[in-house]
Amino acid sequence: MAVGTELLLGQIVDTNSSWMGQRLALAGIDSHFQTKVGDNIDRIVGALRTALDRSDAVIMCGGLGPTQDDITREAIATVMGVELVRHDEILDRIRAMFRARGRDMAESNARQADVPVGASVIAQTRGTAPGLICPVGDKVVYAVPGVPHEMMDMMERAIVPDLQARSGEKAVILSRTLRTWGLAESTLAEAVQPRIDALDRSGGNPTIAFLASGIEGIKVRVTAKAADEATARVMLDAEENELRKLLGDIVFGVDEESMEHAVAARLMAAGLSLGLAESVTGGLVASRLVNVPGASEWFRGSVVAYDPRVKFDVLGVPEGPVITGAAARAMAEGARRVLGADVGLASTGVAGPAAQEGAEVGTVWFGIAMPGEESEAVEVRLPGDRDRIRQFSSISLLDLLRRRLPPAP
Amino acid sequence: MAVGTELLLGQIVDTNSSWMGQRLALAGIDSHFQTKVGDNIDRIVGALRTALDRSDAVIMCGGLGPTQDDITREAIATVMGVELVRHDEILDRIRAMFRARGRDMAESNARQADVPVGASVIAQTRGTAPGLICPVGDKVVYAVPGVPHEMMDMMERAIVPDLQARSGEKAVILSRTLRTWGLAESTLAEAVQPRIDALDRSGGNPTIAFLASGIEGIKVRVTAKAADEATARVMLDAEENELRKLLGDIVFGVDEESMEHAVAARLMAAGLSLGLAESVTGGLVASRLVNVPGASEWFRGSVVAYDPRVKFDVLGVPEGPVITGAAARAMAEGARRVLGADVGLASTGVAGPAAQEGAEVGTVWFGIAMPGEESEAVEVRLPGDRDRIRQFSSISLLDLLRRRLPPAP
Repeated sequence: MAVGTELLLGQIVDTNSSWMGQRLALAGIDSHFQTKVGDNIDRIVGALRTALDRSDAVIMCGGLGPTQDDITREAIATVMGVELVRHDEILDRIRAMFRARGRDMAESNARQADVPVGASVIAQTRGTAPGLICPVGDKVVYAVPGVPHEMMDMMERAIVPDLQARSGEKAVILSRTLRTWGLAESTLAEAVQPRIDALDRSGGNPTIAFLASGIEGIKVRVTAKAADEATARVMLDAEENELRKLLGDIVFGVDEESMEHAVAARLMAAGLSLGLAESVTGGLVASRLVNVPGASEWFRGSVVAYDPRVKFDVLGVPEGPVITGAAARAMAEGARRVLGADVGLASTGVAGPAAQEGAEVGTVWFGIAMPGEESEAVEVRLPGDRDRIRQFSSISLLDLLRRRLPPAP
Repeated sequence: MAVGTELLLGQIVDTNSSWMGQRLALAGIDSHFQTKVGDNIDRIVGALRTALDRSDAVIMCGGLGPTQDDITREAIATVMGVELVRHDEILDRIRAMFRARGRDMAESNARQADVPVGASVIAQTRGTAPGLICPVGDKVVYAVPGVPHEMMDMMERAIVPDLQARSGEKAVILSRTLRTWGLAESTLAEAVQPRIDALDRSGGNPTIAFLASGIEGIKVRVTAKAADEATARVMLDAEENELRKLLGDIVFGVDEESMEHAVAARLMAAGLSLGLAESVTGGLVASRLVNVPGASEWFRGSVVAYDPRVKFDVLGVPEGPVITGAAARAMAEGARRVLGADVGLASTGVAGPAAQEGAEVGTVWFGIAMPGEESEAVEVRLPGDRDRIRQFSSISLLDLLRRRLPPAP
């Protein structure tokens, strides 16, 4: 149950519940309903009673803050039929946090130290509001803050383990996601179909699912259920092997490994440094690469040459049209030279709204200059609006480089 | 009520309900609950009965497709206690749509022509499944497809007008959001408190609410209810005036106007071009600016100088420590010179994970070089992880420039 009038008004999209649903599925716990309710005590109490009638456990998210709108604690106490008691050690920790930030604690924050009688506390590691574990008969209500990283931390640390203990769910469910770039979902599905059929014939464990993730590519998720983690991992390893045989180089990463991490690993292994010349991607490629820890070891920088004059004057592109393969190559060579990098990578194209130099919106040229090789240009046509064209250009350009580099050992 | 197991599993985020919540608020209709339920007949029926108990009207979204998972029609018929009857004219229209696409209609699609006895149909303009208006006693259940553009079309064309007619709700509710940067939420709340008190005393219309939006700043939303749109707008204008008197220059935009749009507007009005030198922001500032349509009129580009050598060799920063005010100023001047811009803006700092040059993680220096002025440097300390520090640096740097430029007329 997500609590907050701003959710009902659509001012915030409730992504917390979606994350929780994914996490619970991985833990082998069915979630049957997700409800959003506003900051109204009667409606929160009513929704909580309904939720407890139809479920064994309820996770409430939001409404634990310091303001008068934050009434999740009161609603739970009402349903439990108990009082709220202020816990001094929680209050001390909140005060200490404010002191650490060199500020005094506004008295309103003391409300965050209130706990329903009979409930136990999920200690706050960040933020100020602790989570709650509240027994209601043989059922349970959990409460966590709506701040995503605080919610996720408390889910991992306290709620998922507690739910698994209560449910007696012994089986371990593990997933592994192979991340791909370069094939349409239908083509990818055809390629993987033989494995899906084989698994169905052999009892349907592990299972395979597809998840189209826009500019993050299409994910192929393998989920295995086993008596213990080691067994589940062996099943995942075996299935990953089979899938890689079918998919080959279009798999760029596993689980949280992004395209920029994949490129970084290959550049490090090859001992090569990278410089960029970005026009249509406007700095997006650089901003993705610098999020890889240790990027300073191999990333020199980027010349975002949005104005043609910057292409001519800084990158040494010959004056003339700039949405061409020749310009893309000259930009890549310029990036290598100006930034003192081993590899130069460039993007130039039309993100829209209007055509340019007679080239349609979505026309994008990539340039790549590898050490000791002739520079090359590749043209692609990308769909979508301004932002989407930039985003697709960024990951496509990184994938182009990834395929030119040997796999990291 | 959003129907679909994929929503509970978090494979899709339910943005439809958020859009509906916004739309209903504008129509002056209160929405008290939003529920997600999986493709299970008993649970859909149960959730629908609960929803009808506590609300006058229920909008169901999803589960109207042709597959065996699509059981919203059956659930509604069960709650109404009626049969489903196949409507030939709907079936003909579905067949015609398939013919128009040069395909035969799979028989399963015929299910989409089933209508509960006593329900009326919202004709499909796109897609194949019609919407439904189903009276249940003196209450009503609406059903629309989960495809966003089909849902939105049916909401505008049939559901919102029908709800307004039933509720007799004539009032119009309009909102306006003032976007701020530079004050903590508690400080902002204190500044605005006098207006909140004044409005409470005068009947609580319009109302004021806060919405912390991370790197998009803190939003102050004014909501006015009036007999007609013109009156509501006058109320919003008046309240915006009062708030701007209290908040002054920390208001950088209204509604969808982002910080980059605000900076763009002031640069255009002043007839100035901009060049960047980005180290800690790693291209993020450039990637935000190029999303403003027409950016090519005033944005020259950015030198993402991640490697210190690029700062020295390309931007002409004197060799030495680079996390200093002097380096930030030299970068800003270098950006102006190298990119041929009127204004130079620079960022250098420590995003982490480790300290650098003895400067702690979160230490960031901004440099700004305005035409005909001495360049300046500003130091800030930012909280959070690597990505957060970059993001906050980006908007803070843009805000620094915004405040140096005269407001756009």
